[in-house]
Amino acid sequence: MRRAEDYRNKVFSLRKNVFMDGELVERTDPRLEPSLNTASLTFDAMQNPDPEIRELVLAKSHISGKNINRFTHIHMGVDDLLKKQLMTRRLCQITGTCILRCMGVDALNALYVGTHEIDQKKGTDYHQRFLKYVSYFQENDIVGCCAQTDVKGNRKLRPSQQADPDLYLRIVEKRPDGIIVKGAKAHITMAAISEELIVVPTRVMTKDEEAWAVAFAIPADTEGVKLITLGKFPPKRAKLLAPFATYGSNDSVIIFDHVFVPNDRIFLCGEWEFAGRLALLFALFHRHSYTGCKPAITDIIMGMAALVAEYMDIEKGAHIRRLLVDLISIAELVFAAGLASAYCAHKTSSGAWEPNIVYCNVGRRHAGMNIFAEYEKLCEVAGGLCATLPMEGDFYNEETKDLLNKYIMRRADISPEKQHRLFRLISDYIVSAQGASKLISGVHGGGSPIMEEIALYGNYDIEEKKQIVKKLAGIST
Amino acid sequence: MRRAEDYRNKVFSLRKNVFMDGELVERTDPRLEPSLNTASLTFDAMQNPDPEIRELVLAKSHISGKNINRFTHIHMGVDDLLKKQLMTRRLCQITGTCILRCMGVDALNALYVGTHEIDQKKGTDYHQRFLKYVSYFQENDIVGCCAQTDVKGNRKLRPSQQADPDLYLRIVEKRPDGIIVKGAKAHITMAAISEELIVVPTRVMTKDEEAWAVAFAIPADTEGVKLITLGKFPPKRAKLLAPFATYGSNDSVIIFDHVFVPNDRIFLCGEWEFAGRLALLFALFHRHSYTGCKPAITDIIMGMAALVAEYMDIEKGAHIRRLLVDLISIAELVFAAGLASAYCAHKTSSGAWEPNIVYCNVGRRHAGMNIFAEYEKLCEVAGGLCATLPMEGDFYNEETKDLLNKYIMRRADISPEKQHRLFRLISDYIVSAQGASKLISGVHGGGSPIMEEIALYGNYDIEEKKQIVKKLAGIST
Amino acid sequence: MRRAEDYRNKVFSLRKNVFMDGELVERTDPRLEPSLNTASLTFDAMQNPDPEIRELVLAKSHISGKNINRFTHIHMGVDDLLKKQLMTRRLCQITGTCILRCMGVDALNALYVGTHEIDQKKGTDYHQRFLKYVSYFQENDIVGCCAQTDVKGNRKLRPSQQADPDLYLRIVEKRPDGIIVKGAKAHITMAAISEELIVVPTRVMTKDEEAWAVAFAIPADTEGVKLITLGKFPPKRAKLLAPFATYGSNDSVIIFDHVFVPNDRIFLCGEWEFAGRLALLFALFHRHSYTGCKPAITDIIMGMAALVAEYMDIEKGAHIRRLLVDLISIAELVFAAGLASAYCAHKTSSGAWEPNIVYCNVGRRHAGMNIFAEYEKLCEVAGGLCATLPMEGDFYNEETKDLLNKYIMRRADISPEKQHRLFRLISDYIVSAQGASKLISGVHGGGSPIMEEIALYGNYDIEEKKQIVKKLAGIST
Amino acid sequence: MRRAEDYRNKVFSLRKNVFMDGELVERTDPRLEPSLNTASLTFDAMQNPDPEIRELVLAKSHISGKNINRFTHIHMGVDDLLKKQLMTRRLCQITGTCILRCMGVDALNALYVGTHEIDQKKGTDYHQRFLKYVSYFQENDIVGCCAQTDVKGNRKLRPSQQADPDLYLRIVEKRPDGIIVKGAKAHITMAAISEELIVVPTRVMTKDEEAWAVAFAIPADTEGVKLITLGKFPPKRAKLLAPFATYGSNDSVIIFDHVFVPNDRIFLCGEWEFAGRLALLFALFHRHSYTGCKPAITDIIMGMAALVAEYMDIEKGAHIRRLLVDLISIAELVFAAGLASAYCAHKTSSGAWEPNIVYCNVGRRHAGMNIFAEYEKLCEVAGGLCATLPMEGDFYNEETKDLLNKYIMRRADISPEKQHRLFRLISDYIVSAQGASKLISGVHGGGSPIMEEIALYGNYDIEEKKQIVKKLAGIST
Repeated sequence: MRRAEDYRNKVFSLRKNVFMDGELVERTDPRLEPSLNTASLTFDAMQNPDPEIRELVLAKSHISGKNINRFTHIHMGVDDLLKKQLMTRRLCQITGTCILRCMGVDALNALYVGTHEIDQKKGTDYHQRFLKYVSYFQENDIVGCCAQTDVKGNRKLRPSQQADPDLYLRIVEKRPDGIIVKGAKAHITMAAISEELIVVPTRVMTKDEEAWAVAFAIPADTEGVKLITLGKFPPKRAKLLAPFATYGSNDSVIIFDHVFVPNDRIFLCGEWEFAGRLALLFALFHRHSYTGCKPAITDIIMGMAALVAEYMDIEKGAHIRRLLVDLISIAELVFAAGLASAYCAHKTSSGAWEPNIVYCNVGRRHAGMNIFAEYEKLCEVAGGLCATLPMEGDFYNEETKDLLNKYIMRRADISPEKQHRLFRLISDYIVSAQGASKLISGVHGGGSPIMEEIALYGNYDIEEKKQIVKKLAGIST
Repeated sequence: MRRAEDYRNKVFSLRKNVFMDGELVERTDPRLEPSLNTASLTFDAMQNPDPEIRELVLAKSHISGKNINRFTHIHMGVDDLLKKQLMTRRLCQITGTCILRCMGVDALNALYVGTHEIDQKKGTDYHQRFLKYVSYFQENDIVGCCAQTDVKGNRKLRPSQQADPDLYLRIVEKRPDGIIVKGAKAHITMAAISEELIVVPTRVMTKDEEAWAVAFAIPADTEGVKLITLGKFPPKRAKLLAPFATYGSNDSVIIFDHVFVPNDRIFLCGEWEFAGRLALLFALFHRHSYTGCKPAITDIIMGMAALVAEYMDIEKGAHIRRLLVDLISIAELVFAAGLASAYCAHKTSSGAWEPNIVYCNVGRRHAGMNIFAEYEKLCEVAGGLCATLPMEGDFYNEETKDLLNKYIMRRADISPEKQHRLFRLISDYIVSAQGASKLISGVHGGGSPIMEEIALYGNYDIEEKKQIVKKLAGIST
Repeated sequence: MRRAEDYRNKVFSLRKNVFMDGELVERTDPRLEPSLNTASLTFDAMQNPDPEIRELVLAKSHISGKNINRFTHIHMGVDDLLKKQLMTRRLCQITGTCILRCMGVDALNALYVGTHEIDQKKGTDYHQRFLKYVSYFQENDIVGCCAQTDVKGNRKLRPSQQADPDLYLRIVEKRPDGIIVKGAKAHITMAAISEELIVVPTRVMTKDEEAWAVAFAIPADTEGVKLITLGKFPPKRAKLLAPFATYGSNDSVIIFDHVFVPNDRIFLCGEWEFAGRLALLFALFHRHSYTGCKPAITDIIMGMAALVAEYMDIEKGAHIRRLLVDLISIAELVFAAGLASAYCAHKTSSGAWEPNIVYCNVGRRHAGMNIFAEYEKLCEVAGGLCATLPMEGDFYNEETKDLLNKYIMRRADISPEKQHRLFRLISDYIVSAQGASKLISGVHGGGSPIMEEIALYGNYDIEEKKQIVKKLAGIST
Repeated sequence: MRRAEDYRNKVFSLRKNVFMDGELVERTDPRLEPSLNTASLTFDAMQNPDPEIRELVLAKSHISGKNINRFTHIHMGVDDLLKKQLMTRRLCQITGTCILRCMGVDALNALYVGTHEIDQKKGTDYHQRFLKYVSYFQENDIVGCCAQTDVKGNRKLRPSQQADPDLYLRIVEKRPDGIIVKGAKAHITMAAISEELIVVPTRVMTKDEEAWAVAFAIPADTEGVKLITLGKFPPKRAKLLAPFATYGSNDSVIIFDHVFVPNDRIFLCGEWEFAGRLALLFALFHRHSYTGCKPAITDIIMGMAALVAEYMDIEKGAHIRRLLVDLISIAELVFAAGLASAYCAHKTSSGAWEPNIVYCNVGRRHAGMNIFAEYEKLCEVAGGLCATLPMEGDFYNEETKDLLNKYIMRRADISPEKQHRLFRLISDYIVSAQGASKLISGVHGGGSPIMEEIALYGNYDIEEKKQIVKKLAGIST
């Protein structure tokens, strides 16, 4: 199996096309290091001392029959979906936030299912092409991101109605050996540390929008690709080192400036009727991943709330109990919805399994609608210190360290270092640029509540409920 | 299989011990008729035209191997739990509210599991006694209620500390052939139309509370038992007949005034260490039933909201979509939690299966915390007419009927009768004594949010979450 | 000053035009008695033992200079508005719910202000006509209702677009001596016990909707007027008499079947540009009244919650404190908004004072958005007994009364009668048809949250806030 | 009047006792510059082009009769309180967040009222001492902070029960000429740019806690005082300069390491019965200030939401209207509560006016309970870009700037720079360390919701509400 070291070296060897704050940078830039640590964890997990984790990460390819990393696996049954969900939760508990690599596996599964359906209706051969791509991906244990969200321009106008047609990524030229695409994808997590960019549509297209109905995968350093990247990570620590401080993420605007995609890497090319289905499929698999990672976030918020209550000696209060149970309820309702979505999954024409769309979306939506409330609860119990904690250096300066250690004390039997470590974590977790950013991604990442609203409204049988009511009312139907 | 007719006749033959509004009444009292209609539905369901419903209601006894009604069945696997949950939802969609009979089956399962555990620890033979009781119950397709909640007196004091020791039901005398019990159980749904009263403890007991640790089952008209009963049903209709108006429920305070319980009907008698476990077990099975019935309530509220929006011609509004999706989310999160609870059930020492306690409780809690919000949403879309709808008679009086039919019109292509029927249903559903009562039972029935809070807090591994946080913070453990 | 007795006799002498449940009834019908009790209180208040109340109800007419009942007064300054708000709260604390008679005074003030504005723009003489009407109203201490809300038909269509033009009340004929109107007004509180019906438009009208732009006042028994009425009151008590059980309300659909309105009673007749202003003015004065009555509702809910906690002996719990403070906050935020609305009132061209529209609407909206939550909080602390309380008769039957008195006990030093009285009140207050109805009127009465939303959005300077933001961002404007 | 320049020079001349991140720094440190800009604004406001602002900031001393800055004024009537509230809102709209200097004026007013009350009861002469201090403060237009919150140690223990008695600031020695104090105050806003530290107790004290009952004022660079300071400010801008980016704040832990306070600067010294009253008074005046500043925060959030909706071309959506009205309601309910608190203020024995405690606290509490919801609403409408906006430099790099300007476009008629400026502001406002910190201070600053809960519960007549209920229920009292 591939080692994290190999992955890093491969990423470092990519053509220099990442921009950060006005400069073209190498992928060894320290602002990308926390992201690399996170992605590396998915390789290291194969050797994790906890056998539960090792077992979760290991999958057997239904293509090659070989052992592979689950982050490259196609879900061939309920058990695969359950394991992916649980693996996501377990690994996110280790990084403290995101595990990043679900992007790639969710894109793989979406295209695996979707290309088969296109072929069935249109007589195309996307699925075979894609099968080869999956084999390559699994064989080489690739790290890929999923580039879905277009920049979208004026929100009242469709792709074809925009003043600038490039505001949705589109095919600008078809050639015998491939296509030329132009446009941009925004908010693309982990693109700057990915080897491959997997591109899928962002929405339903109409008949006159063939040019915008496109899906493909290319190496991240393909000619014409520019990544304009924002690093996300906790505040740097000088001395109070802690695992949480080492993990991070990044988001990019990916510019496709007349980028050539060879035929064997094209998975949708003008079949506009399937743009919506592919968009939905990635969203569905990705929202299912959220039913794993979001409960992990809540686990950590809950753990911080419980621990700070313990350190303050107020753990037994009825008010704390209610607050913790509110957090438990959020975590486990979302996780339960993911479980139900997996247990009620169905087999698609491709043979891969698709999670139940209703349970998956109510789960993700519940998470998105509660992340602010979760921070608020932690804020309530932790008090103001998480926002006014003196800077790290002051805890090490000879003139101030004893004073701070004296005055940070809560329960007398908990050492000042522990108190400091906990408040530093809470501060980094919720009172930092990264912490604030997680609020936003907690709402919008993988689909804003409005997107789940649309998915639910479009896939739920409201008419059946009207019939139930008509019967009760004695209204003839 | 038993017919509804037989059940009714049996109930009508019971000794007259039901009191309503100051009078001792027969069980043929018209205020009990709606409850009988509801309970009858569980027998009629065996002949329901919908095969899905027939199949759900039919179970095979693991004791006798015979076909039985699922409302008397012991859940011997995940599938049984799933079917009970779905059956409950389907039948509640027909009555519009409660199906009542889950009380009995939940009590049976609780005692089935609990008596086995007591015997294992204490060398008693409760399980064998109970097995015979279950056989009798299944064989005769009995309707039983579960009498759990004590009146509880001063809420700060334990059973043994109350000014009046009877404020929790207790054993006042032990005899060779049985025991004498005294006390009362409150809020007991369907007691007045039950053949059997199944009595279980309401809480954890301590060593000095042996007298209060008691469980048993007796016929509802046993000497010394008095039922003081409140009927619940929609406003009576004179002409605008509708299925919803025919179903109802009832609650009783059951007085046990020196009631004799023979030995073979005693299932806990002083083993105080198990009082809490039995209380929890009934609550658990019953809360799992709620993950079936509460989504049905939401189905109906959602159906009414969608239909009234259709009749008003505002169905396409973004605001209506959000409101409906909020309702969908409540229904399906609760149902998903019930599914997860069933899928993650475990086999008990008795061989019966116990639902996962965490998922079950987060599901029931979510339902209880949202019922007011659901009514509020329906109120928002339906407008004030549900509270000011003229009385039924005015729609039939020659001087006023044409006027009301003229002025009740919303969409011109929906007949006034349909408009009337829908608003009458909504009015009866949320603006009636019964409707208001469902709000209260939606919160407190089968366990108030505070009870689920206690169950969750006591059964969730918060320490594990603290460990996760300590690792992230670098706090040695 | 007029006596309640005189008012009742006058009402009883009106032509029989009230329909209830299919029958034409006298106004002495017992279902109207609770409403008459409520309205009578506004007369009795002049002799209330509490001087604060007497002082609040007494006003001096700016027209005649005589002492009048404040429910007929035109607000000539901030102090008048403050007194009306406080009077409303105090009197509603006595009835337990609504005081009804604000309808009339709010309509009077709206037309007083509005007619003056019309005259200024259109050269009409509505204000002089109306001044005479106010004099008559004050002199005779009249009880009047305000008929504003049309039945409105298809909610997507304007008055002039409806399939049936009568779905908004309209002028069908103009005659030298007056007009003939046709249509209906719905949800009209206290119409059946009013001497006068004051009719105002329900919304903005456009140029082609002159026929629907009409305001007037007529005696409640005018030829062609039919009231189809729904009585609202607590469950009747046989023995456990209590003030709360004696007060009530009623709502009517008022049919105007070719009703003649003489010229001196017409206050808007085709000036469509002012329909919206009149609608807004009544809504504004009436919402200001809500900032008085709604806090009274919360006072009572809060009092019940505090008292039931005391009787259960859980009053000192942190959880109870939070719950009570939540209720305090609702009551006092709404009241504070009403105060601010009065203190920031401005003088209109008529000389009467108009409350600040922003504060008034945020106050009413806050009340409407919290009434369900208030019931929910009371439900939470009161527990299930309010929904399962045995019927009154059972507390008086020789066979059951001692048992119920024994088992209803909470704190041992609070008598069973007190326990019973409190739970009966709570049950009647929130678990009855009337209680449920108050939830709906709490949301929709005097303007649904959506109506306050529209009023606020249309009257708030959002552009100013954008300018503030542009300055902060450095965006040129 | 004093100029900002003078104030800055004075601050720069203070003894070096500020520590930041391990270093002893000058007050010219760039991390304090944004705070100085904010405080300077209170001087510059005297020359603000807007006469409304000039008028608000100008007050006339009731002591000297001279014109002074309102931030040093004692409120001698309702009008003063109203002006302070409005001034606070207006100035916070300019900085975008806090105006800082209310700390000093709120402390002045609290001690002005409180010292008079102590003297009346104890025959002390604190008020005269304090009057001299106020004169000095007004004369020199001093900038002072209020050091109230102790570090508090174990939250279950009182000051006298802590393992370390210094966990609440205390008197360790009394001398003829003054006292020596030891301890620390935490979360002290603007201490590092203050000339004076005004110290008041944090809570009620008991008889054996005389040593902790202490209030005084000293220069910020008094011997023994150490400020360990955290700067708070928006991300630095290199090119896209904007007013918002120039303002900031700072919080300090203030260490009092055996600090001498001379007699004329001591305002409470052992009179433990008044510790709670002083704590409450500062909290009350400060919470009243919050009813001015918090609405300004909401104004800005509302303005950003409205402007981003305009730029995206979705401004007319019903959903946007509701969201904006929710924000309007939060801002204006809080402001209305502040107005009501001012209008219902009462004169204290000192002659200064004390705001109504109930209205003030419901206002501040409402603000604290909604700040997370406000960010959430802005997040909802702004979408993910505020969290993934490329760094400023990328908008100026020749290789990327045109691309970013192309792809950031929303409405085609709004320039990319305006789009960029708005999203940069939103990002800085809610997705930065400062932005996250404002969430925490929005909840806890000036009193957490729990503190308002305590203030309300202790100062509200719940018993009166019980009496109302007893009357309605017919319960004798």
